[in-house]
Amino acid sequence: MFIGCQFSLYPMTDRFVDVILGAVEGLKDREDLRVETDDLSTLLVGASEPLFEAVETCFLKAAAASGHLVLTATFSRGCPGEPDDPICRPASPESGQTAAITTVDPTQLAPAGLEVAAQFSLYPLGLSDYMEVIYQEIEATKEAGTFSRGKHFCTRLEGDARHVFATLRAAFDRAATESGHVVLTATVSKGSPTEGSGQ
Amino acid sequence: MFIGCQFSLYPMTDRFVDVILGAVEGLKDREDLRVETDDLSTLLVGASEPLFEAVETCFLKAAAASGHLVLTATFSRGCPGEPDDPICRPASPESGQTAAITTVDPTQLAPAGLEVAAQFSLYPLGLSDYMEVIYQEIEATKEAGTFSRGKHFCTRLEGDARHVFATLRAAFDRAATESGHVVLTATVSKGSPTEGSGQ
Repeated sequence: MFIGCQFSLYPMTDRFVDVILGAVEGLKDREDLRVETDDLSTLLVGASEPLFEAVETCFLKAAAASGHLVLTATFSRGCPGEPDDPICRPASPESGQTAAITTVDPTQLAPAGLEVAAQFSLYPLGLSDYMEVIYQEIEATKEAGTFSRGKHFCTRLEGDARHVFATLRAAFDRAATESGHVVLTATVSKGSPTEGSGQ
Repeated sequence: MFIGCQFSLYPMTDRFVDVILGAVEGLKDREDLRVETDDLSTLLVGASEPLFEAVETCFLKAAAASGHLVLTATFSRGCPGEPDDPICRPASPESGQTAAITTVDPTQLAPAGLEVAAQFSLYPLGLSDYMEVIYQEIEATKEAGTFSRGKHFCTRLEGDARHVFATLRAAFDRAATESGHVVLTATVSKGSPTEGSGQ
């Protein structure tokens, strides 16, 4: 099963090159992820857990170095035409076998100490009852405590960065059990000066 | 039929507030679009032609005022649960009746004079043969002269901003004839300093 994401960091500062390079430093040395970069985005291929962890880490590093920062990401699992990739299977160190997907509970995680606003959309493809999967995951964000409000075409989240990223991962992982091919797009923002943003 | 988009501008400069406010100035006065803004994105609801024209205009205005700029947008048509909206029907001034969708041919448009790089993904929802629609639209970008290369989860475009936006609109409009609910996500970038970006 091919799992990956394309993500981008947008630091709204004249120093954006340094902020981005500092945030992604070391990413290409990781053995649990395949990494490719061009001028538009960085591709990560791997299992869900290290994938989301890496994106969150890059976001937090960039956030520490800039005022207003936005991350956008497209997570995809099971896209037809992509080869199966062993790096996408979560490893079980004891047995050397692949383990089942374990989804985190956002409410159980220690906060990162950074408040963010986010919005996400879920696209379970090839299913006639795809709206059921979407509604189910919107409900789950309410239990996770990160739901802010529904918007046209997406759902708004607010909360600590760790809880927000965990909410996104949980929605993505669970939706993948319902659909062979699922895509989740997300925007995560820190430090917007816009009035009423709650930041 | 409900048509709309959520779009955001990310000027990578300390002056990002001024660049964004200058780019969206006058947008709320338009009578052919419904406009709502929060700290994450601007919603536009309306017919396909004014919708794409407005997004392109905002991008070009912001691009003229900043070095490296990225626009991200999610276009959606036919999302279940959204009400029908008269503003989304293209108007025929002579008859007072709504007109059929007319799709532009990107190769016939005068260029805007700004080279950009872009990537887009198309999600026709609720269809078992959705990959056929996607492959068809990727082929169409080759005829439009804006195709650059396939990437994981998206297709990269390069060319003049007007041709790139027209390619996106054509893909969105045509895919909508195959699917009741279609989403297109796009990233458009100008002035990236990344080596090998062709900008």
